[in-house]
Amino acid sequence: MNAPDKFTQLLTLTREPFPASRKVHVPGRQHPQLQVPMREVQLTNGEQVSLYDTSGPYTDPTAEIDVRRGLPDLRGPWLDARGDTETYEGRIRQALDDGDKSGDADSERMARLRAEAARLQRTPRRAKAGGNVTQMRYARRGIVTPEMEYVAIRENAKREWMAEYLADGERAARLKGNPMGAVMPAVITPEFVRDEVARGRAIIPANINHTEVEPMAIGRNFRVKINANIGNSAVTSSIEEEVEKLVWAIRWGADNVMDLSTGKNIHTTRDWIVRNSPVPIGTVPIYQALEKVGGVAEDLTWDIYRDTLIEQAEQGVDYFTIHAGLRLPYIPLTAKRRTGIVSRGGSILAKWCIAHHKDNFLYTHFEDICDIMKAYDVSFSLGDGLRPGSGADANDEAQFAELRTLGELTQVAWKHDVQTMIEGPGHVPMQLIQANMDEQLKHCHEAPFYTLGPLTIDIAPGYDHIASAIGAAMIGWMGTAMLCYVTPKEHLGLPNRDDVKQGIIAYKIAAHAADVAKGHPAARARDEALSKARFDFRWQDQFNLGLDPETARDFHDETLPKDSAKVAHFCSMCGPKFCSMKITQDVREYAASLEGQAAAPTDEAAAGMAAQQDIAAGMAAKSAEFRAAGGEIYIPIAKG
Amino acid sequence: MNAPDKFTQLLTLTREPFPASRKVHVPGRQHPQLQVPMREVQLTNGEQVSLYDTSGPYTDPTAEIDVRRGLPDLRGPWLDARGDTETYEGRIRQALDDGDKSGDADSERMARLRAEAARLQRTPRRAKAGGNVTQMRYARRGIVTPEMEYVAIRENAKREWMAEYLADGERAARLKGNPMGAVMPAVITPEFVRDEVARGRAIIPANINHTEVEPMAIGRNFRVKINANIGNSAVTSSIEEEVEKLVWAIRWGADNVMDLSTGKNIHTTRDWIVRNSPVPIGTVPIYQALEKVGGVAEDLTWDIYRDTLIEQAEQGVDYFTIHAGLRLPYIPLTAKRRTGIVSRGGSILAKWCIAHHKDNFLYTHFEDICDIMKAYDVSFSLGDGLRPGSGADANDEAQFAELRTLGELTQVAWKHDVQTMIEGPGHVPMQLIQANMDEQLKHCHEAPFYTLGPLTIDIAPGYDHIASAIGAAMIGWMGTAMLCYVTPKEHLGLPNRDDVKQGIIAYKIAAHAADVAKGHPAARARDEALSKARFDFRWQDQFNLGLDPETARDFHDETLPKDSAKVAHFCSMCGPKFCSMKITQDVREYAASLEGQAAAPTDEAAAGMAAQQDIAAGMAAKSAEFRAAGGEIYIPIAKG
Repeated sequence: MNAPDKFTQLLTLTREPFPASRKVHVPGRQHPQLQVPMREVQLTNGEQVSLYDTSGPYTDPTAEIDVRRGLPDLRGPWLDARGDTETYEGRIRQALDDGDKSGDADSERMARLRAEAARLQRTPRRAKAGGNVTQMRYARRGIVTPEMEYVAIRENAKREWMAEYLADGERAARLKGNPMGAVMPAVITPEFVRDEVARGRAIIPANINHTEVEPMAIGRNFRVKINANIGNSAVTSSIEEEVEKLVWAIRWGADNVMDLSTGKNIHTTRDWIVRNSPVPIGTVPIYQALEKVGGVAEDLTWDIYRDTLIEQAEQGVDYFTIHAGLRLPYIPLTAKRRTGIVSRGGSILAKWCIAHHKDNFLYTHFEDICDIMKAYDVSFSLGDGLRPGSGADANDEAQFAELRTLGELTQVAWKHDVQTMIEGPGHVPMQLIQANMDEQLKHCHEAPFYTLGPLTIDIAPGYDHIASAIGAAMIGWMGTAMLCYVTPKEHLGLPNRDDVKQGIIAYKIAAHAADVAKGHPAARARDEALSKARFDFRWQDQFNLGLDPETARDFHDETLPKDSAKVAHFCSMCGPKFCSMKITQDVREYAASLEGQAAAPTDEAAAGMAAQQDIAAGMAAKSAEFRAAGGEIYIPIAKG
Repeated sequence: MNAPDKFTQLLTLTREPFPASRKVHVPGRQHPQLQVPMREVQLTNGEQVSLYDTSGPYTDPTAEIDVRRGLPDLRGPWLDARGDTETYEGRIRQALDDGDKSGDADSERMARLRAEAARLQRTPRRAKAGGNVTQMRYARRGIVTPEMEYVAIRENAKREWMAEYLADGERAARLKGNPMGAVMPAVITPEFVRDEVARGRAIIPANINHTEVEPMAIGRNFRVKINANIGNSAVTSSIEEEVEKLVWAIRWGADNVMDLSTGKNIHTTRDWIVRNSPVPIGTVPIYQALEKVGGVAEDLTWDIYRDTLIEQAEQGVDYFTIHAGLRLPYIPLTAKRRTGIVSRGGSILAKWCIAHHKDNFLYTHFEDICDIMKAYDVSFSLGDGLRPGSGADANDEAQFAELRTLGELTQVAWKHDVQTMIEGPGHVPMQLIQANMDEQLKHCHEAPFYTLGPLTIDIAPGYDHIASAIGAAMIGWMGTAMLCYVTPKEHLGLPNRDDVKQGIIAYKIAAHAADVAKGHPAARARDEALSKARFDFRWQDQFNLGLDPETARDFHDETLPKDSAKVAHFCSMCGPKFCSMKITQDVREYAASLEGQAAAPTDEAAAGMAAQQDIAAGMAAKSAEFRAAGGEIYIPIAKG
């Protein structure tokens, strides 16, 4: 089997819609042309549940997908309507863009792939001379762009179904979130999105050259988002695998994807990924710049780096990780660390700084970079090159010195109306997590925080997705806007398909736990719908409302594979005799009938007091009635 | 292959010592006969790291293991020396103990297994008439038992190796834990253990009939412990599998194991498990009592329950989950819950209470139960029969009313000097976790808290080990003493061998994260040793210091299987050119040499200030030197 066939086969697999789910679209009001996609799950009891959907057109069976053509030009008409951009011939493609310095063994295959990628290229756009086309600029001028309304509709989802779960009363009061300073309105309006973007508290990463993107927001007053990293490597992997990994990643819920490719074919890989991605794509441009100088950090120059930024901006990358806060004076602060500098970008720049005895050229050229960002609306992801590589190095002076500089640079970026988020650690023991959030909020003025985990311990190689999901959930609750996933292979090797999925699910758990804790108005209804299905023994609905319906079903079927077990009022954990859920139903019916007989308490708190007084009157009679009715909870296992 | 062969084969597999590890024993001082086992890991750089070891004699290649004879009678001589117990003929075995009401298909095989189990039986012991043989009683009389000294040595481990990692200075100050009210001494003495047991803040579950147990403590001022549940079920599983699951569970770090068997052969299963277990075994006696009345909750009586307690106490069960706090008046409080009563024991008792319109017989007979507990030193695990079964039901009046009653019962148990811990939820969103700990500490007077997770969200069936590890780590940090694991099969089916392992590793992560956050004096050194190995590219040491060396090695080898890669100064994630760890080493050498040349800062804080002033003097020279030396970080991949 050759590579393209394998690719096509995998893609078919990942395009299958989720069980009992269909793609629905909600139209815009201010921008009626908008069709915001959501996933609607049909439950067996007739209810529908609407879920935020990152998977793009891939899970829509009616969408025609051809990865060699790329996704539809969704935002093209919006850009045309704004009329402040122009198309141009673009930068001239160089062989070095793909790290090609000599003939290589697979050059024939690569030539074919590159030719295909070239056909994918759209004519690049940029702001008209001297213009600024960032969402932040529009927001600050009071404009609600289609992107902003899209985000508002998407974040709101179809909330009608939630009414039952979120109704005011004892439960709503008890489950009220603790927003830790976040301010989330009950309904997300386009104007709210605009205001959050205007003040820098949220970004909408949407390069004008990534017109395929379905706009989304990253900010503490929105759903916590997750990022998945993909990327080839000098050692293994191929382009086809990378594109399929993208589709796979967004299927399971990646809100953003970073292409961290290094080595050869970086440019071509990126073409394929951006053109086929409905989610924002981020990169670390220094990786490619380093390729262009043969891997010798000292040979990096501003010109080469600048050229790389333009190259990637033209391709449509939505945000750049830029380690501009790693200043020369901070480098010696890392000398006594347990694990020194572990950020790849950070260590490259540290080496450059030392070799030249000059301050970081990304810092000294920061305003030049802003000029590029605003011409394409590329967002900053200000990199934490000095993030700790172990719990032992957490919250040290090197880390926080750089963070303060990132705050200073945020102000510079905002002066240019360039959207900005801040990257954070890394490895942080639980008791030191809050200080990270506090410092970031204080010094970076509520620009969205985007952390990698953090890993709470170091002794779990092979399970770092779990060690870090703990830290991610906590820091997400505290105010982090996006969580960069960690896979089980972290520290050990390149993640394969299943590792990517495991990492994403762990991070969907962390992000959702954070949303529930913060009290995001749309978060806990899904938990309640699933819990209700669980209590009602609606097994299929329980599976389908979960983050991974297939795995839930497979696990159930391992012990009780028969179809009849899916409607059985027990499961294999307790067997039919002991099912506590079934017993509870009896208790509930009993208590309910009791309420009508005794002085019925009107709510649960009152019930507590009344109960304490021992509601004896009707109970003895009920007790006899219950026993007379058999009261047997055993249900024979259905045959067949 | 017949069942015993498969069993023997699996057991051989689980007996293999961990890589580069050997069992060492530390002798007692007050009780010189003690030989407290630990695992010592030999690192490739000549260092040794000593780890807490739950695996018992199974990982000692010199130990002769015969599951048909059981483990050695470790504590027998200690009990003899105390002279306050007597052996007696014990309760007469009944067919009903194994749920045997009629001939069954596999009776021949079961008859053989029962005969074997009968040979395992030790002659039961009990306190001499009117006596009280609990560790709490001894502690309150100022006695340091061998069990207490054993615990002290075990908790301390061999700390000499930690000196480098825990040395006073900037790092120690920065990484100081936040104990959240816990008070952990730098060195655990036998007297400290005694005092904690005396005031009820820790328990040492150690039934006098479980002389095979290696004593351990559960308390907020000790390492956070984890419990794994095993158990057959009416639907699947066999006795052999259950015993092997025990050995498997303690291999991966289960500090305690609960045997939650239901259905047939409960008694025989328990014989096998207790006699072969070096860790404390807990049970929920109501499960067996219910079997004895044919599964009809209403038919339960105090006499049947009492007989079951004695039966299990004679077998050596170390703690009983007893749902004595579920009082009749609380039951109607669950009526409006999203998921009613989900505790199996709780729902059985709720049904009994309603059917009889009487208060829970475990509550009304609580002092009778205390009399049994103190005659065998069985510890209470006061069950939370009204724990929430979904986030929606967390922290409601039903849950907290029961918790307050558990606090009241704790005082009663302590009046009898009976060791007591308190069970907790369950399903709790992050923002509601702290209140659980606060309420427990307030009402239960610091008796150890023993929680199931809690699960922070409900939408992750198939991944509830992760959803709950988040809550477990947090509540462990806040003061919970033991975390009951959750496997990936939670809510879906019975955990198999791998599920048990996955659940345990997730909970070892949570418990260790809690220990690090609390500032347990022995916790973070392991993280630092592993981080140091990681930074030094000592791959084997990194694997061997992890929670699961095999998986870490397998993951690494998936991408770079060659042995040479194990010593290579890069890994497959970045490839040889980009290795940030390698670059950092260059940076470090550079910064170190710089220190000697410029006015050398004496610590990292001073270095920060000096660095900010831009230490230009030596730096330009160094920069030239660095470049002249080549400064190349590329290391060719070793061949072969």
